[in-house]
Amino acid sequence: MKTLGLDLGGTKIAAAVVDEGRILASERVETPQTGFDDVAAALERAARSLLERGYDDIRAVGVGSPGPLDYREGKVLFAPNIAGMEDAPIVSSLEERLGRRIVLENDANAAGLAEHLYGAARDLQSSLYLTISTGIGGGLFIGDRVIRGAHGLAGEVGHMTVLLGGPIGGDGILGSLEAIAAGRSISRDASYGYGRELTTREVFERAQAGEAKALAIVDNAARFTGIGIANLQKIFDPEGFVIGGGMTEAGDFYLSRIRAVAAEYLRGYPDADIRVARLGTDAGVIGAAAVAAQSLD
Amino acid sequence: MKTLGLDLGGTKIAAAVVDEGRILASERVETPQTGFDDVAAALERAARSLLERGYDDIRAVGVGSPGPLDYREGKVLFAPNIAGMEDAPIVSSLEERLGRRIVLENDANAAGLAEHLYGAARDLQSSLYLTISTGIGGGLFIGDRVIRGAHGLAGEVGHMTVLLGGPIGGDGILGSLEAIAAGRSISRDASYGYGRELTTREVFERAQAGEAKALAIVDNAARFTGIGIANLQKIFDPEGFVIGGGMTEAGDFYLSRIRAVAAEYLRGYPDADIRVARLGTDAGVIGAAAVAAQSLD
Repeated sequence: MKTLGLDLGGTKIAAAVVDEGRILASERVETPQTGFDDVAAALERAARSLLERGYDDIRAVGVGSPGPLDYREGKVLFAPNIAGMEDAPIVSSLEERLGRRIVLENDANAAGLAEHLYGAARDLQSSLYLTISTGIGGGLFIGDRVIRGAHGLAGEVGHMTVLLGGPIGGDGILGSLEAIAAGRSISRDASYGYGRELTTREVFERAQAGEAKALAIVDNAARFTGIGIANLQKIFDPEGFVIGGGMTEAGDFYLSRIRAVAAEYLRGYPDADIRVARLGTDAGVIGAAAVAAQSLD
Repeated sequence: MKTLGLDLGGTKIAAAVVDEGRILASERVETPQTGFDDVAAALERAARSLLERGYDDIRAVGVGSPGPLDYREGKVLFAPNIAGMEDAPIVSSLEERLGRRIVLENDANAAGLAEHLYGAARDLQSSLYLTISTGIGGGLFIGDRVIRGAHGLAGEVGHMTVLLGGPIGGDGILGSLEAIAAGRSISRDASYGYGRELTTREVFERAQAGEAKALAIVDNAARFTGIGIANLQKIFDPEGFVIGGGMTEAGDFYLSRIRAVAAEYLRGYPDADIRVARLGTDAGVIGAAAVAAQSLD
């Protein structure tokens, strides 16, 4: 079934007409930083330009958005990287603008669902998606469905505490996986350790060149990521894990470290099957379109 | 629907005829420590004595067993507190002995399912059960079902690592919640700290009397239990948590400490609804009977 997916990012809005995971037409516009009305107008514009290309019969539109979200009210409570998105009634606004069913989904859940249904986990009955970029997000999937949890919080695996008294996160809580192992955490540690600003990319380049200080930072992040995956195997026991996000650019150099730690903390338990995401930046729109299609089932 | 539940424990086997969570008849025998054949014979004896009381039309028998289990093969891989239970083909043996459908379930999953369907969480759509006794086990429930996971490992929340380099657990892995906060861990710490053997009960008595050393041990266990619950709220986001097991005997003195830490690590997130188990030691047979009933749906 053809549906429309919208992926609201901090810099770009991606839109696509999708049929069973295949993108038939797509569009990309900049994300306004001038308030919710302008964001809603930009989402409408992107959607309309696709609907007008012979897809006017599409009945449902999925929106993947950064959160936290209020699913019941159809609102974005706030979006850390988009100005003026406090308490934004995204569902009712787009329903009015587009005259179609609007389905809201957390952006990590949307991307993870795309990987679960059509990407790296498409052969699995259950999977856990972990996206490691500036922050760490995730999603849980069983059958063809997202496990949202009672408050839409399920899959927020980046916020599990893995180190008592560890570094403080954006949520004000100490020692979360995200605060230790996300991109922004790695550059924070490197900038302190080197006494000057370093990007995460530069830390990985130096680590791959064998520089001890950079390697210690990378190994520390890999250690806690591996422990996090081992924990999730014991808690949720998915058939497989899919890792997406910018950190996968470091390739096997980083993933092999994560896998080794996960195996260490899973000795005597069933192994974790850890895979790399396949759909790249298309995952967001494909997953958003998929939740829209599921709402019509 | 009436089914039979068997709860295989380290000292006792409990058996009951159960109808929608109500126990109609029950039986209790000692668990033999003389090998699997004797255990299977004892299970058969307990079951038969009930079936003969006018319940011969019962078609399915659920067995709650300590594990790890191999669900596909219907085997108990080993049971730490029952001698001779290595690779025990419990399903095929009882099928032959009783001529009825046998359904195997992990004991913590069975007890948790009973609380989910008929006990402390009966009004909730999803719940997470945490049993804190000698060890720490658990189970995840959505709708009326156990989430078993791909390898039957889901819900083994006691084995999540919460302290890098923490104490070693029975599985040989450092820093699990169980190795810090279970009954056996508390008595280990107390026996070291006091320089003589102390039971967990004595530690709690001394803590309640205000003794600083005992309070430090109790607070440490509560801290990691609270962090574990906060983590599980962010990962699985159940509508509620049910805490069962011997540690609930310490009552609000202990639970209030766990709740306070969970709240600290959930500031800004949806609260965890933490409840005390209601079915006591009956939970095991009720849950075992429930999985048997579900197998006939």
